[in-house]
Amino acid sequence: MEDLGFARVDVDRARRTGDAEVVYGAGKTPGQVIAILRTLHATHPDRAVMATRLSEEALAQVATSLPEASVDAVARAVTLGPLPEPRGTVAVVSAGTSDQSVAAEAALSVRVHGGGVDLIEDVGVAGLHRLLAVQDRLEAADCLVVVAGMEGALPSVVGGLTGVPLVAVPTSVGYGASFGGLAALLAMLNSCAPGVTVVNIDNGYGAGVFAARVARAAGR
Amino acid sequence: MEDLGFARVDVDRARRTGDAEVVYGAGKTPGQVIAILRTLHATHPDRAVMATRLSEEALAQVATSLPEASVDAVARAVTLGPLPEPRGTVAVVSAGTSDQSVAAEAALSVRVHGGGVDLIEDVGVAGLHRLLAVQDRLEAADCLVVVAGMEGALPSVVGGLTGVPLVAVPTSVGYGASFGGLAALLAMLNSCAPGVTVVNIDNGYGAGVFAARVARAAGR
Amino acid sequence: MEDLGFARVDVDRARRTGDAEVVYGAGKTPGQVIAILRTLHATHPDRAVMATRLSEEALAQVATSLPEASVDAVARAVTLGPLPEPRGTVAVVSAGTSDQSVAAEAALSVRVHGGGVDLIEDVGVAGLHRLLAVQDRLEAADCLVVVAGMEGALPSVVGGLTGVPLVAVPTSVGYGASFGGLAALLAMLNSCAPGVTVVNIDNGYGAGVFAARVARAAGR
Amino acid sequence: MEDLGFARVDVDRARRTGDAEVVYGAGKTPGQVIAILRTLHATHPDRAVMATRLSEEALAQVATSLPEASVDAVARAVTLGPLPEPRGTVAVVSAGTSDQSVAAEAALSVRVHGGGVDLIEDVGVAGLHRLLAVQDRLEAADCLVVVAGMEGALPSVVGGLTGVPLVAVPTSVGYGASFGGLAALLAMLNSCAPGVTVVNIDNGYGAGVFAARVARAAGR
Amino acid sequence: MEDLGFARVDVDRARRTGDAEVVYGAGKTPGQVIAILRTLHATHPDRAVMATRLSEEALAQVATSLPEASVDAVARAVTLGPLPEPRGTVAVVSAGTSDQSVAAEAALSVRVHGGGVDLIEDVGVAGLHRLLAVQDRLEAADCLVVVAGMEGALPSVVGGLTGVPLVAVPTSVGYGASFGGLAALLAMLNSCAPGVTVVNIDNGYGAGVFAARVARAAGR
Amino acid sequence: MEDLGFARVDVDRARRTGDAEVVYGAGKTPGQVIAILRTLHATHPDRAVMATRLSEEALAQVATSLPEASVDAVARAVTLGPLPEPRGTVAVVSAGTSDQSVAAEAALSVRVHGGGVDLIEDVGVAGLHRLLAVQDRLEAADCLVVVAGMEGALPSVVGGLTGVPLVAVPTSVGYGASFGGLAALLAMLNSCAPGVTVVNIDNGYGAGVFAARVARAAGR
Amino acid sequence: MEDLGFARVDVDRARRTGDAEVVYGAGKTPGQVIAILRTLHATHPDRAVMATRLSEEALAQVATSLPEASVDAVARAVTLGPLPEPRGTVAVVSAGTSDQSVAAEAALSVRVHGGGVDLIEDVGVAGLHRLLAVQDRLEAADCLVVVAGMEGALPSVVGGLTGVPLVAVPTSVGYGASFGGLAALLAMLNSCAPGVTVVNIDNGYGAGVFAARVARAAGR
Amino acid sequence: MEDLGFARVDVDRARRTGDAEVVYGAGKTPGQVIAILRTLHATHPDRAVMATRLSEEALAQVATSLPEASVDAVARAVTLGPLPEPRGTVAVVSAGTSDQSVAAEAALSVRVHGGGVDLIEDVGVAGLHRLLAVQDRLEAADCLVVVAGMEGALPSVVGGLTGVPLVAVPTSVGYGASFGGLAALLAMLNSCAPGVTVVNIDNGYGAGVFAARVARAAGR
Repeated sequence: MEDLGFARVDVDRARRTGDAEVVYGAGKTPGQVIAILRTLHATHPDRAVMATRLSEEALAQVATSLPEASVDAVARAVTLGPLPEPRGTVAVVSAGTSDQSVAAEAALSVRVHGGGVDLIEDVGVAGLHRLLAVQDRLEAADCLVVVAGMEGALPSVVGGLTGVPLVAVPTSVGYGASFGGLAALLAMLNSCAPGVTVVNIDNGYGAGVFAARVARAAGR
Repeated sequence: MEDLGFARVDVDRARRTGDAEVVYGAGKTPGQVIAILRTLHATHPDRAVMATRLSEEALAQVATSLPEASVDAVARAVTLGPLPEPRGTVAVVSAGTSDQSVAAEAALSVRVHGGGVDLIEDVGVAGLHRLLAVQDRLEAADCLVVVAGMEGALPSVVGGLTGVPLVAVPTSVGYGASFGGLAALLAMLNSCAPGVTVVNIDNGYGAGVFAARVARAAGR
Repeated sequence: MEDLGFARVDVDRARRTGDAEVVYGAGKTPGQVIAILRTLHATHPDRAVMATRLSEEALAQVATSLPEASVDAVARAVTLGPLPEPRGTVAVVSAGTSDQSVAAEAALSVRVHGGGVDLIEDVGVAGLHRLLAVQDRLEAADCLVVVAGMEGALPSVVGGLTGVPLVAVPTSVGYGASFGGLAALLAMLNSCAPGVTVVNIDNGYGAGVFAARVARAAGR
Repeated sequence: MEDLGFARVDVDRARRTGDAEVVYGAGKTPGQVIAILRTLHATHPDRAVMATRLSEEALAQVATSLPEASVDAVARAVTLGPLPEPRGTVAVVSAGTSDQSVAAEAALSVRVHGGGVDLIEDVGVAGLHRLLAVQDRLEAADCLVVVAGMEGALPSVVGGLTGVPLVAVPTSVGYGASFGGLAALLAMLNSCAPGVTVVNIDNGYGAGVFAARVARAAGR
Repeated sequence: MEDLGFARVDVDRARRTGDAEVVYGAGKTPGQVIAILRTLHATHPDRAVMATRLSEEALAQVATSLPEASVDAVARAVTLGPLPEPRGTVAVVSAGTSDQSVAAEAALSVRVHGGGVDLIEDVGVAGLHRLLAVQDRLEAADCLVVVAGMEGALPSVVGGLTGVPLVAVPTSVGYGASFGGLAALLAMLNSCAPGVTVVNIDNGYGAGVFAARVARAAGR
Repeated sequence: MEDLGFARVDVDRARRTGDAEVVYGAGKTPGQVIAILRTLHATHPDRAVMATRLSEEALAQVATSLPEASVDAVARAVTLGPLPEPRGTVAVVSAGTSDQSVAAEAALSVRVHGGGVDLIEDVGVAGLHRLLAVQDRLEAADCLVVVAGMEGALPSVVGGLTGVPLVAVPTSVGYGASFGGLAALLAMLNSCAPGVTVVNIDNGYGAGVFAARVARAAGR
Repeated sequence: MEDLGFARVDVDRARRTGDAEVVYGAGKTPGQVIAILRTLHATHPDRAVMATRLSEEALAQVATSLPEASVDAVARAVTLGPLPEPRGTVAVVSAGTSDQSVAAEAALSVRVHGGGVDLIEDVGVAGLHRLLAVQDRLEAADCLVVVAGMEGALPSVVGGLTGVPLVAVPTSVGYGASFGGLAALLAMLNSCAPGVTVVNIDNGYGAGVFAARVARAAGR
Repeated sequence: MEDLGFARVDVDRARRTGDAEVVYGAGKTPGQVIAILRTLHATHPDRAVMATRLSEEALAQVATSLPEASVDAVARAVTLGPLPEPRGTVAVVSAGTSDQSVAAEAALSVRVHGGGVDLIEDVGVAGLHRLLAVQDRLEAADCLVVVAGMEGALPSVVGGLTGVPLVAVPTSVGYGASFGGLAALLAMLNSCAPGVTVVNIDNGYGAGVFAARVARAAGR
C-alpha cells in the first residue's frame, strides 16, 4: 500500500479479487484524482484503471493532464491503460435519456472489468414495441444490467421476457414521491420476475463489476 | 339522518352526490352490518346499497339473514336492491390471483355506482403476451382500473398502451420491503406513463366509485 | 423516432395514445428545450406541443428564440402550435397563492390535451364561504383538479360537496413536518370522500392530462 | 408515594400540578387496575380518580368489584369519586363513529380535570352543512378538542370557522397509507389554520387534560 | 378581499377569528412583503399586522421603506401598527442560543395577538438548576410555550414542574439523526407529562397565536 | 394455461425462461398447494417443481398426500419430480441458526433450477476464524449467496475475501431498530465491497434462482 | 464448538472476549433453552451462564428442570452457575414501571459479566425531585445505564447532572407516534448532554455487557 | 455565566461534570467562535478548550487571530490551552479516507478530555488482513471508538475480535440508500457483537468524550 498523504492506495487489490483498481471521484479534487490514477497506472501499466463520479472540472483537468487517458463524458468517468479483451457479453438496458449517465457508467465498468457490452437505450415500459424489438439481443447476453428511474418497472418487464441473470439499477431520476430513487429501488426489490437482483441507487459501477464477473465466467 | 345507536346513517348522501350508500364493514359486527343495510335499503328500495370489507362470518350471516342480498365472496362484499342499468364500461385489470379480491371489490363498486364492467385478470407485466392480447378490450373501455401489488408496474405498462383514463390501485400483496403495499403505491405515483392517477392501498371501492363516475359521463 | 444527439424524440406517441407531445424541461438546457420543441412542432404543425418545468432562463430564451410560442410564466411552461378546440370542462381548484404554479401547469395541460378549463383560485378550507360560493361551478365541471399543499384537506371538502370525478394534486408547499408535500399526499390518499384519486406531488401536468381525457369523453 | 409491589403510586401529584390521578390501564391486569384505583381513591376521597384504556374484561371486573365506580364503556374508562364542579366549557368535536371512543376519552378527561363538556359528534368535512349548523356551539366554547382520523382535515376546517383555542387529536382510524394515524397526525401538524396544536395519535386523555386547564382558567 | 396581482389579501379575517393579519414572508420578494403589509395596515390602521420568516434582505428593505415598522431581527419578523394592550401572560421558554429565533417569533406572535410575554431563555435540561430557578415565573404564566431542538426533552421536564397549559415547539436544530427536527417532534408528541400539546417544527408563530388566545381568555 | 378455479397455472413458463415452476405457498391452503403441485408435475413429469413458504400444516399434508414429494422442513419447502443434474456450484453462506431457514430455501432453489450447492453455515462476522477457514470453498464457487440478518455485515466481509459474484439476502432476524430486516437490507445495498447485489428481505428463493442461472452458465 | 442439532454452541467465546455465554431465548423452545444452558454450564461450571428473553412458559420449565438455576421473572431471564465477584458499580436507572423489565435485564447482565449493580427505579423526568435525591448514587457509579421509553428524555437530564459514562437504553414503551421505541431512540441519539451512547431498543443485555466491562476496568 | 450578546457561556460546566468547555462551531461566525474561545480560555487558563465543526474560513481566521491556538485541519477543530496529561488509551479505528475527519474529531476530543489516543486508520472490513494485523493494539486499549460509513460493518467485526468496550460512530459517507448515514447507524444498533454502543451520525466529539471518561477511569 502506498501513501499519497490524502489516501493510501491499495495496489494489492487486483491480485486479491482479480479486479481493476477504481477511484471513487466524488469529494476528491481533480488534482487528487489525477495523482491516484497515476500511482495506480504505474503499478498496473498493463491493465486499465478507472475513476468514476468525476465533476465537469475533473473531467476537463484529466483530459489536459493525462492526454493518454480515455474520457467518457456521459459516464462522467475516465480510464487509463489498455482495456482487457472482452469475454462474454453484458447487455446494458436503459429507458430514458436521464438514465443514460448511470447506464454509461455501468457499461464502462463492465469493459474495465473484462466483459463485453451491448448497450440498449430508450426501451421504456411505456413503449413496449421498442423493447420487444430487442428481445433477441437480451437473450444473447450472458448477463443483463437494467437501469431505470421513476417507477422502476423495466426490470420486471425484461425479467419476464428472458431467463438471463438480471441486475437492476434504480436511478435517482424522478421528483415528488420518488424520494431520490427510493421508489424505484423498492419496486425492483419487489419485482414479480424471479431472479432479479438489485444494487444501490445510481450504482452503475457496482452493477457493472458484478455483471462483468458473471459474463467472464459464462464466456470463458 | 337516522340514529341506530351505534351509527347515524346518512340517507341524504345519494341525493347530494348522486351515489349509492355504502357500509364499510371492517370493525363492525355482522349484526350491525345487517341492521345498517336494512335501514339503507328501506330508504332506497329502488337502488342497490352495498357493504364492503366483510369478514367470513359477516358474509355468512348476511346470506342467512338477508336472503334477498347478493353476496360476492371474492370481493368480500354484498349488495341489496337492484343494480342500476350500466352506462359506459370500466375495464378492471389485475395481475395475480392475490389481487383478485381488490379487483372484485372495484368491479362490484363500479356496478353499484352505475358503470358497466369488463373484468380482465391474470395479465401481469412478467407475461406481456397476455396483456397485448387484450389491448382491444383496454381501448374499448371508458375508464381503466388497474390493480397490482409487489412492484406495481402494471399501470405503467398499460398506460403506455392506451390513452384511456387509468386509475391505479396498489395492493398490500408482497413481503419484505413491500411494506404492506407502500412499494407499489410509490411506484404508481411515479409512473412514467402520463395520466395515471392513484388511490389508497387496497382501495378497490374508491377506484370503483371514481371510475363509474367517469364511465357514466362518457357513456351517456 | 428522431435522434437529436441528446434525446430521441418519440413523434409516434400522439398517434398511439391520442395525446400531445410534451417536453419535461427540468435538467435540460434552454437550447435543448428549444431544439426539441422545434422538432416536435415540425412533426405536428397542426396541434400544440408543450414544455414544462422551465427555469426563468429557459422561459426567457424560448420567448426570444421562438416568438410564435406562447409563454405561461405562472405555469413555468410554453406551448407551440394551435391549442385544440376545448371539449368538456375541467375545474382547476386551488387554495393558496403558493399553489398557483401547480394549478396553472394543470390548467395549461388540460387545454393542450383538448379540455376546457375553469380556474378557481383562493378557495382554502380555512375560508369555507369562498368555497361554498363556487359550488355551482364545481357541479358544472366534467372533472375536478384540486390542488393543495400543507395539510391537503381541500380535496376531502370539495369531494363532500359534489359527485364530479376529482383528481387531487398535493403540492410541496409547507415546511417542518410537511416533508416536501408528503403530508398532503398522505392526507389525500386517505380522504374520507369517496372517489378521490391522487397524482404525485406537484404533478399538475399528470393531473391535467388525466382530467382532459375524462372531460373530452364526457363532453363529446 | 405508596408501594403496591407492581407500582408505586404517586399520591403527591395532584398537589404538585393541580390535577387528578389517572391510571393508564393498557398492559395492566384488571386486578392491578382495581388495586391502584382503590389506593388513589383512599388518598383523594373528595375528587375523582380515573383509569383509561381498559379492556372489556377490566371494565367488567371494575363494574363488579367497585360498584361505586362510574363506567364509561365508549371511552373504555372508569372514574371513582365525585367529579369536580365544571368550570368553563370544552367542545369535543368528532367526525365518524369510529372516532367516538377517543372523543369520549377526551370528554371524560375534561370532566375529571374540572372542565365542562359539550360533545359534538358526526360533523365530518365531507358534510359541511352539519358542521356549519353547530358554529354557535363552537364559538361558545373556551377550548376545542377536535378528533379525526383518515386525512385529519377536520381541525383545519373548524380552525377556519372560529378563533377559539383548538387541540387536534389524530386517531388511528384508517387503512393502507394511513399508517396507524400518521397521515392524520402530519396533516394536523401542517394545518393552514393558525393556532392549532396537536397531541399524539389516539391521545384523548392528553387533549382532555390540556383543554380542561385552558377552560378552567377562562371560566373562572 | 383585495387583489394585488400576486396575492389576494383577506382583510376579513380579523373580523372572522378575532386575530391579526399575518404575512408569511418565505418565498415572497421584499417588494411583495412591503406591498401586502401596506395594504393590511391601511385596512387595520388601529392594530398591528405582522410579517414573518423574512430574509436578511427583506428585513433591511422593510426598515428602509416602512420606517414606521418595528423590526425584530432575532425573530426575523416585523410589525406595523400599534401592538394591542397585553392581557394575560405567556412564558416563552427556550434552551439553547440556536432556539432563540423560534422563541422570538413565538414571543412576538403572542404580543401581536394580544397576550403579554415573559421570555425565559437558556434553561436546558442539561442544566436543571437554571430551570428550577425560574419555577415561580412558570407558575405565574397563563400559558407556556416551550421551544427545544435536538432531543426535545425540555417540555417533559417543564410539564412535570407545573400544571400550566403547555405548547411545545420542536426546532430544526440538530444534526445526524435529528432529521431536521423530527426527533424533537416525536419526543414531544410522546411526552410523559400530561397536557403537553405540540405544533409543527419551527412554528413559533402558530404556538404564539394559540398561547395568546389562551392567555387572553385567562387574563380577562 | 390451465384454470384450477383458484389459480391459473402458467405451464408455459419453463419454456419461456428455462426455469422450473414454483408455487408460492403463503396464503394458500394445503389443499390448494397440493392441487397446483399435481397439475404442474403432470405437465413437467421430467423435472422438479417446487412449493415454498409452506406452513407446518401444509408440509405435513403434502408429506401424506404426495408421498413421492421430497419435504425440506428447514426450508419450509417441497419438491416433486427429479432434480436436474447440477451444473456449476453455488456456495450458500449463512451466519446464525436463525438464518438457516432462508439459507435452506436458497439452497433448494439453486438445486431445483439446476445448480450445485455447497452449504456453509455458522460463519458470522463476530467469529472471523470460522470464515477464514472456508475461504477456499468460497473461491471454488461460481456464485455466492450470502444470508445475514441483524446488521447485515457478512456480505461485505465475504466480498472483501473473494471476487466471486455475490448475491446478498437480508433476513428479518433481529429486533428493535432492525425493522424486520430493513437495517440489514440497507447495509447490504451500501456494501463497500464492489460487486455485491441484493434481493428482497428473506427472499432465498429469488437469490437461488439468480445464482443457479449464473452457476449453470459458468459451469457449462 | 459443540453441535446440538438445532444450534452449535460456541464454548470458545468466553476465552476469546472474556465474557460469559448467553442464550438469546426468543424463538427457542423451552427444551432448546434448557439443553443449551446445560451444555454451556457443563463447559463453564465455575461461572454463570445466562438465558434472556424467555417466555412465561420457558421460565416455568427452567425452574422445574434446572432447580439449581436462578430465575429472574422481572428480567425474563435465568442464570446457571455462580455469579462472579462484582468489581466496580453500574447504576441502572429507570423511570416508569413499564421500563422495569428492560432495567432488570440490564442489571442481571451487569452482574453476570462481573460488575456490581445499584438499581434506581421510578426517577422520571416529570418528577425531578426524585432524581435529584439520588444524585450522590449516580456520582458514585463507574458507569450508568439509563432506561427510558416514551420521549426518552431521562438520559439527557441525568447526563447534565454527572460526568459518569452513560449508556442509554430506549424501550418500546409508548403508543401512537412512539413507533415501538423509535421516538425514544432518536431522542437519545440527539441528546444535548455530551458523552451519551445508545444501544438498540429494549437491549438491556447489550447495555449491561458494555457497562460491566467499563465498571470492571474502573473498579480493578 | 457570562453574556457575550450572541451566547451565554457556561463557565461552570467543567466544575459540574469534570469536562472541558467546547464550542460547537457550526452556524457560528469566525468572529463569534474566536470570542467564545477567548472567554472560555480566560476562565480556564490551565486546561484546553476546544471548538469543533469549523469552516475553512473559521479555521483560517482562528489561526491568524489566536496564534497560540492549535489547529487540527483534518478534524476541523482547534484547541486553546494545554492539553491534559493522558490517562488510559482510546484506540480510534476507521476504515476509509472519507471517515478520517470524524475519526480525527473523536481523537482530538479524547485528548482534550484527558485520554490518550492510538489512531488506527484504513482498516475496513473488505480488507481483513489489515484489521487482524492490529489486533494487539485493539486489545491494549481501554476503550475503542470505531468509525465507519456505508454499511457500518466495522464495529461488528472489531467487536468480535475483542472484549474492550466499543463505541461505534456512523458517518454520513455514502450515497443512494445510505440516507446520510442512517444505513450505518441502523447496522451498528443491530450489531451481533455484544457490548457495542452507538452515538449519533458523524458525532466524533460525543464518542470521544465518552471514551475519554472510560479510559481515564480504567487508566487511573
